[in-house]
Amino acid sequence: MKVTVLGLGSMGTALAGALLEAGHETTVWNRSAGKDEALVARGAARAATAAEAVAASPLVLACLSDYDAVHGLLGPLAGGLRGRTLVNLTSGTPEQARASASWAAGHGIGYLDGAIMSTPPGIGSPAVMLLYSGSPQAFAEHRETLASLGDPVGLGDDAGAASLYDTALLGMMWATLGGWLQGVALTGADGVDAVTFTPVAIRWTAAVNGFMSTYAPQVDAGVYPGDDATLDVHLGAIEHFVHASAARGLDPALPGLLKSSIERAVAAGHGGDGYARLIEAVRAGGRA
Amino acid sequence: MKVTVLGLGSMGTALAGALLEAGHETTVWNRSAGKDEALVARGAARAATAAEAVAASPLVLACLSDYDAVHGLLGPLAGGLRGRTLVNLTSGTPEQARASASWAAGHGIGYLDGAIMSTPPGIGSPAVMLLYSGSPQAFAEHRETLASLGDPVGLGDDAGAASLYDTALLGMMWATLGGWLQGVALTGADGVDAVTFTPVAIRWTAAVNGFMSTYAPQVDAGVYPGDDATLDVHLGAIEHFVHASAARGLDPALPGLLKSSIERAVAAGHGGDGYARLIEAVRAGGRA
Ligand SMILES: NC(=O)c1ccc[n+]([C@@H]2O[C@H](COP(=O)([O-])OP(=O)(O)OC[C@H]3O[C@@H](n4cnc5c(N)ncnc54)[C@H](OP(=O)(O)O)[C@@H]3O)[C@@H](O)[C@H]2O)c1
Ligand SMILES: NC(=O)c1ccc[n+]([C@@H]2O[C@H](COP(=O)([O-])OP(=O)(O)OC[C@H]3O[C@@H](n4cnc5c(N)ncnc54)[C@H](OP(=O)(O)O)[C@@H]3O)[C@@H](O)[C@H]2O)c1
Repeated sequence: MKVTVLGLGSMGTALAGALLEAGHETTVWNRSAGKDEALVARGAARAATAAEAVAASPLVLACLSDYDAVHGLLGPLAGGLRGRTLVNLTSGTPEQARASASWAAGHGIGYLDGAIMSTPPGIGSPAVMLLYSGSPQAFAEHRETLASLGDPVGLGDDAGAASLYDTALLGMMWATLGGWLQGVALTGADGVDAVTFTPVAIRWTAAVNGFMSTYAPQVDAGVYPGDDATLDVHLGAIEHFVHASAARGLDPALPGLLKSSIERAVAAGHGGDGYARLIEAVRAGGRA
Repeated sequence: MKVTVLGLGSMGTALAGALLEAGHETTVWNRSAGKDEALVARGAARAATAAEAVAASPLVLACLSDYDAVHGLLGPLAGGLRGRTLVNLTSGTPEQARASASWAAGHGIGYLDGAIMSTPPGIGSPAVMLLYSGSPQAFAEHRETLASLGDPVGLGDDAGAASLYDTALLGMMWATLGGWLQGVALTGADGVDAVTFTPVAIRWTAAVNGFMSTYAPQVDAGVYPGDDATLDVHLGAIEHFVHASAARGLDPALPGLLKSSIERAVAAGHGGDGYARLIEAVRAGGRA
């Protein structure tokens, strides 16, 4: 397949490298000179202009700093993109992605918005997810080529979905890492190394994944049975987390916040419900 | 092997059931009558008194409501426990576990403190972790029998470790589930079902586990290279999480807290460091 990569920052360079590795005819372009040299040495074709790069391939990937850069570069090239597929792997908001998709639709350009759930060294590994949303036809047509970059996960035709999932998944990451840091600090205060605690913590995440799988259909149904553990039981147990953190002089903020969300739901009369009940307070802006 | 189970609440009943399932000669006792019937029908021996139950086996498991109940029951039976191993699977604090271990040591009783990382239906599955800390000899001697209950994870000779890990792991669970709920609410606001988002979230946890593995030795070394992503980069990205939550009217508390811990570290001059740097603020009670 012929593929063009616009933008050879650290991520664009990794993308182009993975395409070359997979044997695709890869054309590259970057605003500043010099960043294409290693890729050209590995067999990439150098385009003198972005217009020339776009003309070289039916599939064009853009990976620039932000959406303003993408629009500045591609706005004038809409004619050249007509009939091709643009995959925008630049990070942004769902709103920006949707605006780009309607711009593309208005110019007869197939459009996919993508989110890369990895740093550059992970690119090319099937263990890494790249999320795509937008034109289902474009995804079906180019899925195999995109698989050279990492496992392509299609999220349907709302172009904003990839960026929204990206934000949601990063949010989960910060929350999980925050919980992990608290656990590391708790056990560390009693003499346990982080490298000793962490493998046990990682095993435990399999159980936590099981809870999410159990709770997801409860959230969709709006029915929150307390059959595995009620919020009353969670409240009793989370006291230990708050207390153990305080007793060791650790940051009380995260345990306190997690406790207070359970506490509010119990105070509102939901102590007999299961954990998934808390979705209602998240949706209601924090009111149980 | 001969094993005694004291306490046939929902968890003690599951423990005794798994021992029977594995073919162990199981003696059971409960304070109130009647809870042993189904177990006796499956082949358990009924003890008329706790003293008789203790006398029946070299390995005695206790699973009561709390440590006060354990001490009330076993304090008078210390003589009968001499030379046997007591595995206390009752939930409590590290301090309570350490006090029980020294009481046991003073009476020549082998002691393990345990934490069950499962609800009763999981008992017996090798996918479930039971954490044990205390006498390494007792753990080595009874490990195989304990494996009937779930995978036995030995945490060394500080009897408080099982309970401390329990609290730390549950803390991670609440933090992760809190992040998951926020992600479910974010994507849900734009029309994505929880059962659609959750499998992607679960796949992503493998990447998050990779970050923990990377950061754990950094925490132990006190060296936090920003080579995968700096705190400056995290701060830029977490703005999207805060903003997307606010734009959808969701509870701002968790995104705000996670952002502020990154923000404080950046303000303190650590923007070029990696995420693991935040351990220092957790340890320092929240001060970056
Ligand atoms: N790095 C990661 O770990 C990672 C992970 C996931 C997502 N992403 C996303 O991938 C995108 C690129 O990231 P990166 O790490 O490759 O960034 P980077 O190394 O800073 O590269 C930025 C690229 O954008 C180009 N650019 C910026 N403004 C431009 C403009 N007005 N016109 C044309 N080109 C312009 C730069 O060209 P010059 O060389 O001429 O400056 C460079 O090629 C970002 O949206 C980022 O959020 C990155
Ligand atoms: N269930 C879970 O999902 C789970 C998970 C992990 C850990 N645990 C821990 O396991 C322990 C037991 O939990 P459970 O769910 O089995 O609780 P439970 O169903 O409420 O059973 C409590 C047991 O403790 C006995 N008991 C209470 N006070 C006593 C006393 N003073 N003397 C003698 N026996 C006494 C009760 O006897 P009576 O029948 O006579 O009242 C009953 O057998 C708790 O520490 C709990 O935190 C439970």
